[in-house]
Amino acid sequence: MIYLDNGATSFPKPKEVCAEVEKCLMEYCANPGRGAHNMSIECDFRIMKCRENISKLFNVKNPLNVIFTSNTTDALNIVINGLIREKDHVISSYLEHNSVLRPLRHKEKQGTEVSLIKGDKDGKLSIEDIEREIKSNTKAIILNHGSNVIGTIQDIEKIGELAKEKEILFIVDGAQTSGKIEIDMEKYNIDFLAVPGHKGLLGPQGTGALCIRNKISFEALKYGGTGSQSSSMEQPEFLPDKFESGTLNTPGIVGLSKGIEFINRVGLEKIKEKEIELTNYLIQALRNLDFVECYGPLDDKEKTSIVSFNLKGMESSEVGRGLNDREIYVRTGYHCCPLVHKLIGTENRGTVRVSIGYFNSKEDLDKLVMSLKDIYKEKI
Amino acid sequence: MIYLDNGATSFPKPKEVCAEVEKCLMEYCANPGRGAHNMSIECDFRIMKCRENISKLFNVKNPLNVIFTSNTTDALNIVINGLIREKDHVISSYLEHNSVLRPLRHKEKQGTEVSLIKGDKDGKLSIEDIEREIKSNTKAIILNHGSNVIGTIQDIEKIGELAKEKEILFIVDGAQTSGKIEIDMEKYNIDFLAVPGHKGLLGPQGTGALCIRNKISFEALKYGGTGSQSSSMEQPEFLPDKFESGTLNTPGIVGLSKGIEFINRVGLEKIKEKEIELTNYLIQALRNLDFVECYGPLDDKEKTSIVSFNLKGMESSEVGRGLNDREIYVRTGYHCCPLVHKLIGTENRGTVRVSIGYFNSKEDLDKLVMSLKDIYKEKI
Repeated sequence: MIYLDNGATSFPKPKEVCAEVEKCLMEYCANPGRGAHNMSIECDFRIMKCRENISKLFNVKNPLNVIFTSNTTDALNIVINGLIREKDHVISSYLEHNSVLRPLRHKEKQGTEVSLIKGDKDGKLSIEDIEREIKSNTKAIILNHGSNVIGTIQDIEKIGELAKEKEILFIVDGAQTSGKIEIDMEKYNIDFLAVPGHKGLLGPQGTGALCIRNKISFEALKYGGTGSQSSSMEQPEFLPDKFESGTLNTPGIVGLSKGIEFINRVGLEKIKEKEIELTNYLIQALRNLDFVECYGPLDDKEKTSIVSFNLKGMESSEVGRGLNDREIYVRTGYHCCPLVHKLIGTENRGTVRVSIGYFNSKEDLDKLVMSLKDIYKEKI
Repeated sequence: MIYLDNGATSFPKPKEVCAEVEKCLMEYCANPGRGAHNMSIECDFRIMKCRENISKLFNVKNPLNVIFTSNTTDALNIVINGLIREKDHVISSYLEHNSVLRPLRHKEKQGTEVSLIKGDKDGKLSIEDIEREIKSNTKAIILNHGSNVIGTIQDIEKIGELAKEKEILFIVDGAQTSGKIEIDMEKYNIDFLAVPGHKGLLGPQGTGALCIRNKISFEALKYGGTGSQSSSMEQPEFLPDKFESGTLNTPGIVGLSKGIEFINRVGLEKIKEKEIELTNYLIQALRNLDFVECYGPLDDKEKTSIVSFNLKGMESSEVGRGLNDREIYVRTGYHCCPLVHKLIGTENRGTVRVSIGYFNSKEDLDKLVMSLKDIYKEKI
């Protein structure tokens, strides 16, 4: 089996991730923050360790500003729901995932104004286009760092500078870049960073985080028990408790912690290099096939380890089925990103998306390319 | 080590729960609902199996009306946030956890009217008291089935009848009773049931569910990718997708499925019997100690496997420390239930809470009682 769907969720996980989840479930999984006994404190301690690991990776000054969520969507909903009010204006883009577009659409119905920047045919946004949209009521710029369909990386450093200069909040969806490319909240002036635990960070599903640079007061999305100020009916105002109601996913979080420790041990730079090398290798191979149409940037400085393409005259789902029959697992179709497909002209067929992870090899990609040739040959 | 904090989270988990989580992480954990390849379909299939297990356990007619959430609080927030509007009136009680009281407090600030029924000294609510509060704008009755502080079980069958007769929605917090006592949504006229995956259902943390009897249209709490209607910026209206944005916790859910299968194999009735037997055994032992003050009902037909008490002249936290030193793990303090402590007169000291699970034994309770004697003797 060859797994090339790391943009959806990374697989395999480092062995220590699985081992720690298992150990937690078998040995110490009490309720963190809800007890003063040793097992509960052990969970607290390990969860705090994960906050620290996340805060170091993204340069969040205070680990308590790392809010655990169930996934990136949860994190994005917390900040979009809480921060954006009826009369506000928000700038976002055609590149966004439905995790941003759908919450914004909901806000739009309540009166929020939303401007979506188009980007060029490779999905690159121009700073000038963004700047042109800024108005007196622009509250936030919300962008993904790397496209989950075509891999385009945005220049978040320059966009962050612009946001800072114009005193606009900068919210970044790091779903496809966290654990793969450097994200420094201070350096890039990112006010809110939403990340999944189960993609580039190599942790289990059911985990994610919202990283908050400076505390800004806004309403919680959910209310409930936090284990703190337990005798009050009011939600605590301090972080992370304000946004963490209900029992946390302890086994998931301790696994995530090990995922980040794996990244630190290997080195983010080395992971990035390997993924770039594999991505370039695949792009070169695909460009040699005249029946393959690739989308998005082909320059490795501009993209993550995601490659989207179609075979001439074939549905993406048909190609996906052919690959699945050969035990090669990719994603096909629309990738929860309705507007990107308009940019690249695939609104009626979607794309075949290959998303490469650190554990893939050139052999995996050779087999993929060989299979594509076979599938195309069978078809014509 | 003796674990008596099952009301916070159950421990240990059945072996097959841990084994399936591990297997999932190691072998097949792709992204469910986001791919058409075998691994993704395998996840879909197993998640559907869990929906079926949950729907059978609680008599939910359509398994697609089982919404996976990250915990009970998440489930309660979905329904309270979506269903209750500004001008509505809601009936709830002093027995509620902050997972209900805090969302209701938030709604109150937006104009919702909330009536909290007191209950007697054992926390039992009277049907007459509930009926007396019903007004023309009463939208819902929201109650927990079993108190997490004093174990009181409410007569949800009679309350459900009343709700049906008065055409009021009935929302039940099954945090302490699911997997321990029968809950039948049809029989008890429960419109919405919120349950944790990691307590009585014996699954991992990071799981929970909102069960919906009949589809009622209300706003989602979160918006985002659902893997369905992927090329639309509108949230799908169908269940469960409407309320399940973002990647699900696949390893948690497959573990939860095994937890429910364990319950089915042993038999809910047998689990209930064993827990009642142990609870009665503990209550009898505590009643023989003149330095122990017990709270809540002492009749086994009226309570779950939770026993709250204090030692005369001692802080609950002091007792907890003494037990922790002896490797007996209980919860002490306020239990995220501010109003219950007013009912039982412990608003200044909280309680020592022992919550018994299926894997506990009489020996565990003997050691607990012996330790309480020692702790008290050391103190005086």
